[in-house]
Amino acid sequence: MSHLLIVAHGSRREASNQEVRELAIKMSQINAGSYDSIQAGFLELAEPSILEGLIKLINNGATHIDVFPYFLSAGRHVSEDVPEQLKIVQQQWPDIKINLKPYLGSNNALPELILESLSNHL
Amino acid sequence: MSHLLIVAHGSRREASNQEVRELAIKMSQINAGSYDSIQAGFLELAEPSILEGLIKLINNGATHIDVFPYFLSAGRHVSEDVPEQLKIVQQQWPDIKINLKPYLGSNNALPELILESLSNHL
Repeated sequence: MSHLLIVAHGSRREASNQEVRELAIKMSQINAGSYDSIQAGFLELAEPSILEGLIKLINNGATHIDVFPYFLSAGRHVSEDVPEQLKIVQQQWPDIKINLKPYLGSNNALPELILESLSNHL
Repeated sequence: MSHLLIVAHGSRREASNQEVRELAIKMSQINAGSYDSIQAGFLELAEPSILEGLIKLINNGATHIDVFPYFLSAGRHVSEDVPEQLKIVQQQWPDIKINLKPYLGSNNALPELILESLSNHL
């Protein structure tokens, strides 16, 4: 079973966390069978944590988990903090395949998506 | 003359600011004439500031400026801090058309873009 965990920083502002959870729901709705489920997890300040999110997926039978950092820049969170959480889980469950995907801001399709959305509103 | 200012939070980590400036360059390269120029500006911690960015565009002849918040969630920065900066400039130059565009995280095409990029790497 293949699952996706969207990881975000987490905010004191609960509405911001809810935006990430809603992204997971929207992606689940248009997901054409690539993933058995799509969930959200947070580095801090919100629940579930990345650890909780991963462990829940594993307990539900996940054997392959893609982790997508919902971050705009490649700071310490993307390069160190998120991988550190994955490592903890990987050491505990060595047979689970956990793949860290490129973070949102590095997506080469983003510049065009932004330009298109702006031209629709001109 | 119509211009685009991409506004980001700004970071102590200069490489993150550079990512935003590079986004502006990439968007300029694929921009099919919608804008005369595409620039980056920062709310804090990096240069140019939003004010500096807007004033520079106006001094260069801009009459219409779209402002695109490069933010993932609709927090205080998007709802208050960025509009406040625009208001200052608008009061000084009432004839310039300054349009605040929807922030990145609200883009309805984002969920599909993310799913597609993930499936390309599965």
